[in-house]
Amino acid sequence: MGAKPAIAESVARSALVEAMRAGDSVRGLTSPNPPVGAVILNAEGEIVGVGATQPPGSAHAEIMALRAAGERARGGTAVVTLEPCNHTGRTGPCSQALIAAGIAAVDYLHADPNPVATGGAAALAAAGLKVRQVSAPDAAGVSDALIPWLLSVREQRPHVTLKFAQTLDGFTAAIDGTSQWITGTQARQWVHADRARRDAIIIGTGTAFADDPSLTARYPDGSLSEHQPRRVVIGRRDLTAAGDVARNLRRLGYEQYPSVEEALVGLYAEGARDVLVEGGAGLASAFLEADLVDAISAYVAPVLLGAGRGVLDRALVQTLALAPRFHRVETIALGEDVLIEYAR
Amino acid sequence: MGAKPAIAESVARSALVEAMRAGDSVRGLTSPNPPVGAVILNAEGEIVGVGATQPPGSAHAEIMALRAAGERARGGTAVVTLEPCNHTGRTGPCSQALIAAGIAAVDYLHADPNPVATGGAAALAAAGLKVRQVSAPDAAGVSDALIPWLLSVREQRPHVTLKFAQTLDGFTAAIDGTSQWITGTQARQWVHADRARRDAIIIGTGTAFADDPSLTARYPDGSLSEHQPRRVVIGRRDLTAAGDVARNLRRLGYEQYPSVEEALVGLYAEGARDVLVEGGAGLASAFLEADLVDAISAYVAPVLLGAGRGVLDRALVQTLALAPRFHRVETIALGEDVLIEYAR
Repeated sequence: MGAKPAIAESVARSALVEAMRAGDSVRGLTSPNPPVGAVILNAEGEIVGVGATQPPGSAHAEIMALRAAGERARGGTAVVTLEPCNHTGRTGPCSQALIAAGIAAVDYLHADPNPVATGGAAALAAAGLKVRQVSAPDAAGVSDALIPWLLSVREQRPHVTLKFAQTLDGFTAAIDGTSQWITGTQARQWVHADRARRDAIIIGTGTAFADDPSLTARYPDGSLSEHQPRRVVIGRRDLTAAGDVARNLRRLGYEQYPSVEEALVGLYAEGARDVLVEGGAGLASAFLEADLVDAISAYVAPVLLGAGRGVLDRALVQTLALAPRFHRVETIALGEDVLIEYAR
Repeated sequence: MGAKPAIAESVARSALVEAMRAGDSVRGLTSPNPPVGAVILNAEGEIVGVGATQPPGSAHAEIMALRAAGERARGGTAVVTLEPCNHTGRTGPCSQALIAAGIAAVDYLHADPNPVATGGAAALAAAGLKVRQVSAPDAAGVSDALIPWLLSVREQRPHVTLKFAQTLDGFTAAIDGTSQWITGTQARQWVHADRARRDAIIIGTGTAFADDPSLTARYPDGSLSEHQPRRVVIGRRDLTAAGDVARNLRRLGYEQYPSVEEALVGLYAEGARDVLVEGGAGLASAFLEADLVDAISAYVAPVLLGAGRGVLDRALVQTLALAPRFHRVETIALGEDVLIEYAR
């Protein structure tokens, strides 16, 4: 409290960016655990260990970073994107591991909202470590991978991102139903990389019937990403009853829920924290009407159709003042297309 | 030819950026003449004069820059965004003025496509000056103000930019007709600054009747910009016959043309080179159907409506492969909104 920090502020800041980057690198692999990143600095402020949360049942980020640092951690600083846990779940408490390793100071970005795991900061301070909560640097060039997880814990349902690829004038298909391809290669590759970072991809039964999608995450060379999100269909129509439809989903496997609400309850219970809704228009409208859209990823292509299938299939409101408004988070140029990312 | 250039390349390049900036600063003020910028470097490569085209009948950019430079121009370099003219119109030929000022070298960005004015480069070279055409630096951070003018000379009609402000899902008004405001303050101020750089703002009679627009260019404090573009209405309905409608246009004055084609012929004949089409949906569709849209300025707001008035009011095509595609030129974040600029 007011004492000279063990390391310089600029060092602490870049260590936090590194920790955020490490956490971001494991998005999609850790649920129901958060994708945390940790950096260990030695007493001189040099990075001696970087770690990120491993798949459920394996080590947390702090443990990975401590392992990498070994004896060099003694007297050093741990910079973590989430308050170190204080409970013994499938792994031991990280706060005890930090104390045992001789860490002198801990910076953490987010407080742990989980009532079971919380108390890590207090336990560390009680053991004599210098503990402080820090904020994310502006324009760090790295996104905060914990935002979906934090919301999911708060709301007790997965964080929902609505994704669509549309013409500039708001259509996802032409009058004759053609939609391949509205966006270019770069945008489509981005979608696949994004899928690999999610716990589940959700579509409606209409899209399952009409498009026979695979909902896989692929690398640009066409090979499958290591992490494949769950394939989820929402709606009451039976995909297996109707003969030769939805062949890809039937081959690859999928989960089905009758409604948006039941899907979110079920997916959360089964560990999903961060899901992507890919349409169609009816399902997108249903999520918006239920006020269950936390983020939007809109891929906007330089094409005009004038008419066709819209992003949504019905009016959300009659008048502009009542229309849902989001906040622009990021705008990313992808070749001729633009990805605009919004949050609530 | 192959000789050592009089000034270093990096100096020539930044002088060109300055010249482009100067030309850009007079957009909207010079038609039917092009908004040219010129920079004079002395023999040591220092900027000693900057100039831009004055309103029709007054000095061209080179003359303004030479006046600023005075005697310091002798032995120097002129960097100009357009090949210096070689004819005596309302002003004397710029090529002769450069020779008379003792300029040793001339860099120009665009060749003059005007058959009456062309020949400047040849005349300068014949007089012993080192003359070369240069290309615009990538990512100069300044737009090329001559693009609309060059197209207008080539096509013998004004360059047309289609502008619209829309919700993310492609609507310009809600079901009840409300449209104020879809975009935020920053985007609306940008629109006004853009208007002040155009020769004319064009709307359809439907918009004139429905919205009673003023089509003025205003500063953020609400005061009128020095340059006001012409107000143009396209359509056959008589704005004066129908009582209490389009009051602002009737008060401020406007020109009316029965069709898109007649408007472009008439406006070009009267000196307009760069016009902005602001809608409504019927007029925007007509311009696109006639393949007369050279650029698009799309202001995209973080709002979803699901239904309402679209950017266009009819299908341009039935199938995606035939839909008009543009090229993304720039993406500009304006608060919560995004302006995406496209060219053909």
